[in-house]
Amino acid sequence: MADRVEIFEVVGRDGLQNEARFVETPDKIALINALSGAGFTKIEVTAFVSPKAVPNMRDAAQVMGAITRRSGVIYSALVPNLRGAQAAIDAKVDEVNLVFSASASHNQANVRMSCEESLTALAQIVTACKEAGVPANVSIATAFGCPFEGVIAPDRVLGFVGNCVDMGVAGVTLADTTGMANPAQVSALVSAVRARYRALPLTLHFHDTRGMGLANVYAAYQAGARRFDSALGGIGGCPFAPGATGNICTEDTVHMFEQMGVPTGLNLPSLLEIAKTLPALVGHDTFGHVIKAGRSCDLHPLPGGASAQSA
Amino acid sequence: MADRVEIFEVVGRDGLQNEARFVETPDKIALINALSGAGFTKIEVTAFVSPKAVPNMRDAAQVMGAITRRSGVIYSALVPNLRGAQAAIDAKVDEVNLVFSASASHNQANVRMSCEESLTALAQIVTACKEAGVPANVSIATAFGCPFEGVIAPDRVLGFVGNCVDMGVAGVTLADTTGMANPAQVSALVSAVRARYRALPLTLHFHDTRGMGLANVYAAYQAGARRFDSALGGIGGCPFAPGATGNICTEDTVHMFEQMGVPTGLNLPSLLEIAKTLPALVGHDTFGHVIKAGRSCDLHPLPGGASAQSA
Repeated sequence: MADRVEIFEVVGRDGLQNEARFVETPDKIALINALSGAGFTKIEVTAFVSPKAVPNMRDAAQVMGAITRRSGVIYSALVPNLRGAQAAIDAKVDEVNLVFSASASHNQANVRMSCEESLTALAQIVTACKEAGVPANVSIATAFGCPFEGVIAPDRVLGFVGNCVDMGVAGVTLADTTGMANPAQVSALVSAVRARYRALPLTLHFHDTRGMGLANVYAAYQAGARRFDSALGGIGGCPFAPGATGNICTEDTVHMFEQMGVPTGLNLPSLLEIAKTLPALVGHDTFGHVIKAGRSCDLHPLPGGASAQSA
Repeated sequence: MADRVEIFEVVGRDGLQNEARFVETPDKIALINALSGAGFTKIEVTAFVSPKAVPNMRDAAQVMGAITRRSGVIYSALVPNLRGAQAAIDAKVDEVNLVFSASASHNQANVRMSCEESLTALAQIVTACKEAGVPANVSIATAFGCPFEGVIAPDRVLGFVGNCVDMGVAGVTLADTTGMANPAQVSALVSAVRARYRALPLTLHFHDTRGMGLANVYAAYQAGARRFDSALGGIGGCPFAPGATGNICTEDTVHMFEQMGVPTGLNLPSLLEIAKTLPALVGHDTFGHVIKAGRSCDLHPLPGGASAQSA
């Protein structure tokens, strides 16, 4: 196993958007700047959304305008509509990440449109982005399951991927928005998308809500996926499950790939240092494992005398 | 995917052995009795070890003697030596689970013997078990990595598996004692063991110390493994990593397999009910995800009005 993977950091957006406490703008800027030095090729910085709906993203333009742009890093932002896209373009994002839900009910709850209405709107936004010279990625939320409807039929998702390809998007992200995907399902859907759209830059976005996050990453990798979203500290919990874990954890994901011999281009010790600063920002403990246990390669001294009897 | 898997519950032994608080004997008995009704084919009840080294297992004989034996369930116990095996046989266990470490330094720290000395001792114990008519499984600890030495060479582990097969053991368990295994390594070692010893009942024992627990389960399953140890609530943390997660969590593992369409024969709602009783027993929160987030199939009502904008 040596194929390189790309890990896209989404802590600034998906990590922080559901946090109860407003993270101060200078802290957000410092976080993104620190992450810029860790080797990411793409960082989702913020979201240009309704400040009423998502208060923690209300400083999107300020954050985007004040971060230090590092050469080789794509600074992207999530946008749900044309207005958001225009604001993101004005703020000079390198890429916009559009979003709609594969589930009709989730899309209705999220953006108050049917999926068909969303696709029409998306086509307009993609055109506007092209005119502005800004690549547009589309994230298909609830691509594996919807908290209101349950499992989403793979053919429905495949159809939406096709719609995105027809629009000329820069890439598509399949998002397991509330952590419902399982590895068998991931393997099947990734294989199907890759078989039909081999040239499409495909990203997988998993949440660890039910503990299957890294299993899904491994299943997707085995099926040929090489791009993954993740959030430092695994923050970004689900609104339906208070206390539940959030996005897959960046440093745990990087650790797994490095242990597997798959290069990530990321500096894990540096990520662990940055992850240590997160609890103070969000006001609660975060979900990383490696930050507590150390890397598998961090060895321990032999014990002096005690016998342990463990297996 | 429809091959049935067997999940062996080890919370009574590996889950409780490192707990700081002594879990009262009647509570242990009630826990094992409750688990007996959930569909397990094998439950590791306790360990016959030095009460000084592992105080929480000091009531091994009492627990073993007082649980209600349910037909169809194998009640096993871990033993590190002949004395423990004799005590386990006297206590009428259905199976003994012997243990030694693939890592020389870990074995020395654990049982103060070289691996060669341990193999000689194991052969004697297996013979004693045969004479008593009690099957003996051998758990090879640190089969993927050692906290003192790092990665353990697969050929070394394969050799030890061969030694166990030659002794006529009932089965072998490859244990990732301190959660160092990664899915690529698991896939390779399980494939190698199965290629060489196809008839051997092989069990995988993972810890989630670094978040790779279910990824390793999935990798092992893909490589043909069908037997897994797990602990209710994911308890059983690592002595080297205070606060780190423990064994893979039974209810999360069962949930993943059921979502994948792989039968486990276990009653997940019942497991979740029993898991709810654990924090009161051990005096701290446990590590399960599904107990917090609900099953993927537990749907939510559509929200009334609020817009969420998530992906």
